[in-house]
Formats: sequence, structure tokens, C-alpha cells
Amino acid sequence: MAEQRIVYMDHAATTMVHPDVVTAMVPYLHDRFGNPSSIYSIAQEAKEAVDEARNRVGMALDAPPGEVFFTSGGTESDNWAIKGVASANKKRGDHIITSAIEHHAVLHTCQYLEKQGFRVTYLPVDRYGVVDPADLERAVTDQTILVSVMYANNEIGTIEPVRELANIAHDHGALFHTDAVQAAGHLPISIRTGDVDLLSLSAHKFNGPKGTGALYIRKGVKIDNLLHGGGQEKNKRAGTENLAGVVGMGKAIEIATTDLPEKAREVTGMRERLYAGIMDSISFARLNGHPEIRLPGNLNISFEFIEGESMILLLDSFGICASTGSACTSGSLEPSHVLLATGLPAETAHGSLRLTLDHDNTSSDVDYVLSVLPEVVGRLRQMSPLGKNPGQGGNCNV
Amino acid sequence: MAEQRIVYMDHAATTMVHPDVVTAMVPYLHDRFGNPSSIYSIAQEAKEAVDEARNRVGMALDAPPGEVFFTSGGTESDNWAIKGVASANKKRGDHIITSAIEHHAVLHTCQYLEKQGFRVTYLPVDRYGVVDPADLERAVTDQTILVSVMYANNEIGTIEPVRELANIAHDHGALFHTDAVQAAGHLPISIRTGDVDLLSLSAHKFNGPKGTGALYIRKGVKIDNLLHGGGQEKNKRAGTENLAGVVGMGKAIEIATTDLPEKAREVTGMRERLYAGIMDSISFARLNGHPEIRLPGNLNISFEFIEGESMILLLDSFGICASTGSACTSGSLEPSHVLLATGLPAETAHGSLRLTLDHDNTSSDVDYVLSVLPEVVGRLRQMSPLGKNPGQGGNCNV
Repeated sequence: MAEQRIVYMDHAATTMVHPDVVTAMVPYLHDRFGNPSSIYSIAQEAKEAVDEARNRVGMALDAPPGEVFFTSGGTESDNWAIKGVASANKKRGDHIITSAIEHHAVLHTCQYLEKQGFRVTYLPVDRYGVVDPADLERAVTDQTILVSVMYANNEIGTIEPVRELANIAHDHGALFHTDAVQAAGHLPISIRTGDVDLLSLSAHKFNGPKGTGALYIRKGVKIDNLLHGGGQEKNKRAGTENLAGVVGMGKAIEIATTDLPEKAREVTGMRERLYAGIMDSISFARLNGHPEIRLPGNLNISFEFIEGESMILLLDSFGICASTGSACTSGSLEPSHVLLATGLPAETAHGSLRLTLDHDNTSSDVDYVLSVLPEVVGRLRQMSPLGKNPGQGGNCNV
Repeated sequence: MAEQRIVYMDHAATTMVHPDVVTAMVPYLHDRFGNPSSIYSIAQEAKEAVDEARNRVGMALDAPPGEVFFTSGGTESDNWAIKGVASANKKRGDHIITSAIEHHAVLHTCQYLEKQGFRVTYLPVDRYGVVDPADLERAVTDQTILVSVMYANNEIGTIEPVRELANIAHDHGALFHTDAVQAAGHLPISIRTGDVDLLSLSAHKFNGPKGTGALYIRKGVKIDNLLHGGGQEKNKRAGTENLAGVVGMGKAIEIATTDLPEKAREVTGMRERLYAGIMDSISFARLNGHPEIRLPGNLNISFEFIEGESMILLLDSFGICASTGSACTSGSLEPSHVLLATGLPAETAHGSLRLTLDHDNTSSDVDYVLSVLPEVVGRLRQMSPLGKNPGQGGNCNV
């Protein structure tokens, strides 16, 4: 029996570590294992490797390397940015503004701060998932200390008008943070021209290792520590550096940002062909997110009369790795807060498919998905109690 | 010219990742890179690998695996344990008790909580660095919500009477946390008999990778999250799992705890020979920490009329990696808070050498250090303004 073909189209969830990144990391697990805080020679090699990785991340963000701080990932970066700014600036104000479609690392952090006495405004989005700068202008007050709006959405791919939003925040004396976890390594990012004060990123979204991220903090920003302890990261982030992870992140972002526009164009081309093919072959389908202003690799489509998790499992049986807008949390299916915020009804949100491509996908991957997906959707619709013939099938919840 | 010999005796700072651990990790960087939260097959392999690592950590601690939560390291574990318990139990009381010789990840976290309105008692230690349970008995009140005392000290190796302290805490309705970062993988630990409620550990102290740790949380313990976001780690610790790191930690603790008593005996033997040799050959030297109740590999000796950092740099020129009790923080030398707490004068604390051995050291390493150290100490004493002939030398601060 032939080995089953695997087509990975869930790059927004995580990516394979690039072989050159693995090669760069391994020596720092084994031979060059020193603690960067120690002062003897082999530890100084480790320190230099961390500094080089910092330079690479800084270069990729067009930012001074001294303003890049390594963390354990995007979630820690978001928690640090938001809690750290809130606590360091609470004498100035108690108001935070974010959007309704942020990642849970931002939303749950904001909800936590509400319990601590902060006030949080969750800006709405339009049907494409775009935050309207006019809404921010109306919401911001002299009590606003922080505005946090993501660079690009993880579910529907929409790119937010970050620079405009940052300017409004600054006009009112507020700091601006952006969760760029999905954008970094996939879109050109410039701290210098983007005018953000804090920016979160995560290595495993651009072929680096899981468990390593960074927070860019503009010099002079008032921010408290999230992790207390040793003096690492210029006394801002305690804990022995994840040496191999940091080295891997530096290498990964260097690779990801090399020829980025060409790679983005190629990925966009595959995504557009996939989108066109799906719309041609499957009825009752609609695109989520902005038709143009979106991440190169992100395609999110809702199919009526379908339950997303069943679709993922059936696609998996064909070797296709994808995800659905609806997250399955401890057995109860909740529709995606992002899709609901764009105005999608809960039933439609449930039947959403997120396919996220990257430059390790091929044209043949696109063909394969196009050959399989209509059959999958058709089969589920036949079975579905949500469908037009509810008498024909069983319960598609698995 | 012959390559210089390297003798690594700074295992308390960090350890080399075991080759079998690297071998276990690499597939989870590359081929098996799925996000454990995704539901398709290749992601489920990742989830199973995390579960297997959790089983291994649970087994090593004699704890139910379901009570083991992965973190980014010992610092995060300590921060989470202390801040999480403080915030979840603040309605019951505002008092925390710890010791004066904790790692900064505990001390600085407690100092942070003092600024948030908690009261913290720092228990003294005797000249060996031992916390007296009678002192805890006197300090604990019905307002005490948490007692945090380390399992074994990172600088002087002293093992604390954790079980006795935990019992006292429990008698008064307080929770007990222990920072076991130095002990795990080096001493047999049993959660079931040790009676602790929370225990921190860090993979890179027992030949696992940096950037991965765990917090043991006894079932039923009231603790708030430190990192908010996704539903990972049963909704207790958000953030995509450090897959390869977690796999490495599981493998590392399995290796470390295999034949642990034999390895500990062997390491203790090398340490004792090293100690005896140093005391025979160098005058004005004294042992720090408890003479017997200490970590197998820890030797901490103060040499009068010496500045520790100079000693580390000179030893480095001989290929010996070691550390000093005095931490060099942003250019200003502060004597170790641990040594000061044991009653050592600041000048003597400055001249301390920490040599931490492990089972990858050999008898020949011990011989080499014994052949080099007397010369190093002698040379520095000749140069030293702290010495008996202050006119003879220059400034040893480098």
C-alpha cells in the first residue's frame, strides 16, 4: 500500500522548523551549552550567539537590536506587553483599548486586567474584520494608556491599519502594542516606519522552534516585568535564556525575511488559485476576511450546512491538515469569536475552514486539496442535520 | 599546540544536553512538528509526545502526571507558583513566608508582591544555610497563605528540611511551595512523601534543554494563571507547548533519575576528594553550606584575601569553568545574599568559589582542578589589595 500523501495547510497553527534552523540550533544544545550569564569563555560564546540572534531579529523588524527582548513565545510577549504597560502606567490612566478579534493571549489578558480594575474597550470590526480608525478615535480618552490591535488576524488573515491606529493612540498620549505573531516573517515589518511601541512575535510561526518568541519594546516605554528573578535581558525578563531556541529564532527570521516579497507573491498566487477553485466547485461557500488586504497564505471559507470539526477530521483521513474557525474547548463547540465579530451567524461560523499555506506548499498540494474538498463537503452535507435534508443523516458531531 | 583542556564544574549554572536527549528532541523540531492543540493525526502525535513527557516527569517526582504543568523554566514556575497562589488566596490572607537564601526568582517575586500589598517574612538561616523549622513555627499566622522554601540551595548546596517545613505550613492552613530547581534529577524527590503542594523544576539543570521547566501543582490547590490565552495545559498555562523542549525534558529526567543513588554517590565521592584536596593545599579557606546535608555535586569554598570574579577569570584561562558566590550585576559587585545570610562577612563572601560537579566529571577533572587552584589562589593573593601585602599588587577588579 502506498504511503498516504500529507498536505500541510495549517501554517497559522505552527510550522516545521527549517532544516537550516535545526542545524543552527543543535550545537547550542550540546557542545556550546554555556549559560549566557556566566563569565568564562564557553559561556561568552553562548552570550554572543544570543546577541547575534538579537541582531537578526532587530534587522528583520528594522529595529534597534537593543529593543528586542526574548520570551517563551507569543503568548508571553502579549501578556508581558499588556500587563506590564498596564501596571507601570496605572497612575496615568486605567483604560485599555483592543479589538474584538484579537488572539486569546490578548483578549484573556485584557479580561484579567478588567478583574484588576482596568477598563477595557473592545473595538468592533467590519464584515472583513477591519478595525475602523474612526472607532478608535471615538473610544480613546485621556485615561487611555494602551491600544493593542493585532497586525494581522490569525483566523481570517485580515491585515489591520496598524500605522493609522498607532498614530491615533500617540496623538492621545497612549502607547501602541501590536500582536504581530501571524505577520512576522510573512509580511515586511518596519518598526521605524510602523511607529508601534511594542510588538509581539513567535518563532514557530515562521519555521523557528516552539517555545521562543520576542517582544519589541521601544526605548523609553514604561513597562513592568512579567517574570521576576535574575538579571537576564537587561533586567527586564528573568530566566536563563532558551539558548538553542533563541539561536533558532534568529536563523529562522533571517531565512523568512530573505526574498520575502517574492515568497509572499508565490504563496498569494497559490492561495488565490485555491480560493478560485473552491468557489468554482462548491456552492454555498463564502470567503471570510478581507478579499485583498490579508496575509499571503490565509484562506478562510465558510460552508453552509457543515460542522467544521467533522470537516477537519474527514480532511485528515485524506492526509490534509487544516483547521476550523470554531475551536473545540473541553468538548463544547463554541463558534469563533472572530467570525462572530464579522457578523457571521453562529451556524455559518461553525462550518468554517482555515487553510493556511506557506512557501513549502506546492502547486500540486493545491490540486490535491481541490480534488478532495468538494467530495468532503458533499459527503458531510449529505449526512448533516444542519443540511437541507435533515432526515437523511446522523449526527455529525464527533 | 595542544588543544586546551576544558573542565566544566559549573553544573549548577547549566548542563550540557545529554546526547540521547538531543536525539529525542530533533524529530519534534522537524518531522513531528504538529501543534499539540490541533486535532488531525500529525498533531495528535505531538500531543502524545507531550503526554509521554508528562508521564516521565510525574514518575520522576512520584507524582500523578496530571498534576505536572510545563512552563518555560524554573523562573516562570517560581513566579507562577508564588504570584498565582497569592492572587488566588488573597481573600484568605496577605502573608507569605520564604527564606533569606532563595533564588532571585523567588525573592524578587516576593518583593514584587510586597509592592502589591502582601506582607512577606524572610526566614533567617543558620551558619550552614539551614532554615530552622522553629523559626517558621514562630512566623506563621492564620493570615499566612503560602510558605516557599527551596529544596536545596543553588549557591551553597544546603538541603532544607522541606518535609518538616511543609507540615508546619499545613498545620496552619498555608500552602507549601518548594523551588526544587537544583534538587530535581540530583536527589530522589517524592511528592507523595514530601508533602509539598507546589514544586518548581527546570530541565537545563539535569541535562535537558534550556527554556523548559515544570510546575507540580497538587490537585485542588487554588492558583491563578500567570500567562493568559489559549487553553493549553488544561487551561492553566497558555501558549503553544515547547514541543521539542518538553520531549527533551521528559527524556532528560528519565535519564537523570535512572540509577540516581549510584550516580549521586559517585559525584559525592569526587566532591569530597576535591574538598579534602583543596583544604590540604590552600590556607585561609572555609567550606560554605552544610558539611553533609548538601547536594552531591556542590562545593562552595571561601578563600580569604581574594576577589571571586578574578578567580573565575584566571581559572577560565586554565580551561576551568566555575562560578563565584558574588554575582556581578551591571558592573557593580554585590556579595552573595546567600553567603551574607549565613553570617559570612562581605569581604569573605566576595572570595567564594562554587564548583558544581556532575556525573560527566571524572576523577582526572578533580586532579586537574587540584593541580591548578592552589596556584591561582596564590597568584591572586600576591596581587591582591585585600591581601596581607597590599603594597605588592595592583587592582584585581577586572
